[in-house]
Amino acid sequence: MDQSGSMKRRMTTPPPSERSTLRRLPQRASYEEAVVHSILDEGIVAHVGVAVDGQPYVLPMVYGRVERDLYLHGASVSRLARQLALGVPVCVTVTLLDGLVLARSAFHHSVNYRSVVVLGTAVLVTDEAEKTRALEAITDHLLHGRWAEVRPPNAQEMKATSVLRLPLVETSAKVRTGPPRDDTEDLALDCWAGVLPLQLVARPPENAPELREGIPPPAYLPKTRAGQ
Amino acid sequence: MDQSGSMKRRMTTPPPSERSTLRRLPQRASYEEAVVHSILDEGIVAHVGVAVDGQPYVLPMVYGRVERDLYLHGASVSRLARQLALGVPVCVTVTLLDGLVLARSAFHHSVNYRSVVVLGTAVLVTDEAEKTRALEAITDHLLHGRWAEVRPPNAQEMKATSVLRLPLVETSAKVRTGPPRDDTEDLALDCWAGVLPLQLVARPPENAPELREGIPPPAYLPKTRAGQ
Repeated sequence: MDQSGSMKRRMTTPPPSERSTLRRLPQRASYEEAVVHSILDEGIVAHVGVAVDGQPYVLPMVYGRVERDLYLHGASVSRLARQLALGVPVCVTVTLLDGLVLARSAFHHSVNYRSVVVLGTAVLVTDEAEKTRALEAITDHLLHGRWAEVRPPNAQEMKATSVLRLPLVETSAKVRTGPPRDDTEDLALDCWAGVLPLQLVARPPENAPELREGIPPPAYLPKTRAGQ
Repeated sequence: MDQSGSMKRRMTTPPPSERSTLRRLPQRASYEEAVVHSILDEGIVAHVGVAVDGQPYVLPMVYGRVERDLYLHGASVSRLARQLALGVPVCVTVTLLDGLVLARSAFHHSVNYRSVVVLGTAVLVTDEAEKTRALEAITDHLLHGRWAEVRPPNAQEMKATSVLRLPLVETSAKVRTGPPRDDTEDLALDCWAGVLPLQLVARPPENAPELREGIPPPAYLPKTRAGQ
């Protein structure tokens, strides 16, 4: 694994726990809260891990953040939501993929990415006001401004939805940026090297088939990035 | 969680194990091997979960596939590689994000996605020929055609790299496609609904700073998708 080209940021707000301290490539680690939050805010899907009898399960979930809390939600009857509600250890990982790092040697190939790992124990949210705020955060995390326009959950929907809170205490970020860093003796090789940047872009919105006439896509949709 | 708009594909090659059978929204489940392989082949980063003393850890890793085996690699000295090499249960999840599903009700918001979950026990690859094939698969998974052009790993690099094989036996796929499906009574709301498609696109390649003059980006780089 390539150890170079990394952005070094290492601060201690909050200080990392022993088990959330990166041992490999510590120059890629960031404990700065602002970095952790910015990665979480840019991501859309988290990969949530729980272990059942030693077998880990990792499932994609949407999420939201309110200050120093991460919120997950799921159907109340789902296996994962029930498991999480038991108060088991959880790991929530969000990864943003920024590019392919194409070195002259196979060994130094890598990806540019920004990732956050959150360890902790999720807690079932039972307070209705907090639950509503969390669902607002999750909805607006998908698309900022959406909550204000849509029909909020009714009592039946609230009951059918479990919301879980995971404090952003044991967090770590890992970031790789920049070009490949080949061994000096490989620089003379007749092989292209560089980065292929990758970006998640929005395409033009597609109206729902039953959409009433005369309702345009909302202004808060991100501008389609095609062509930029 | 939204239960609609799903693509139903359910076949049994190989038959799912009890623990890899989806219980929630089974209409989103696919056990068809070709679907599992196509999702794995399109993904770039997997989220790999292992549990240590009941605490799950989920880390992003690149990977490769050779027929019915998934390969992971890491620095031999890394915690995760050493943990995996012990023969512990592992979960490898790959998720492709295809769009935001924007319903008229908060409750029916969702994402369009394709995901694969692989359960099993990874095995350390000790055969040098298989290890080389796996590294070729991982490199070409990043960018098809790359392996043939780059300097292959030397003995020291091979020693510094652990390769792990996870058989694609206990696999399941989950797919959501299509528009939001709101409750009938919400269709009259004065709220836009639809899908915002998302796509991971390549931007123009960036040459490494020390690139020798006269070496153009290779033809096997994907065409930049901007503007399409």
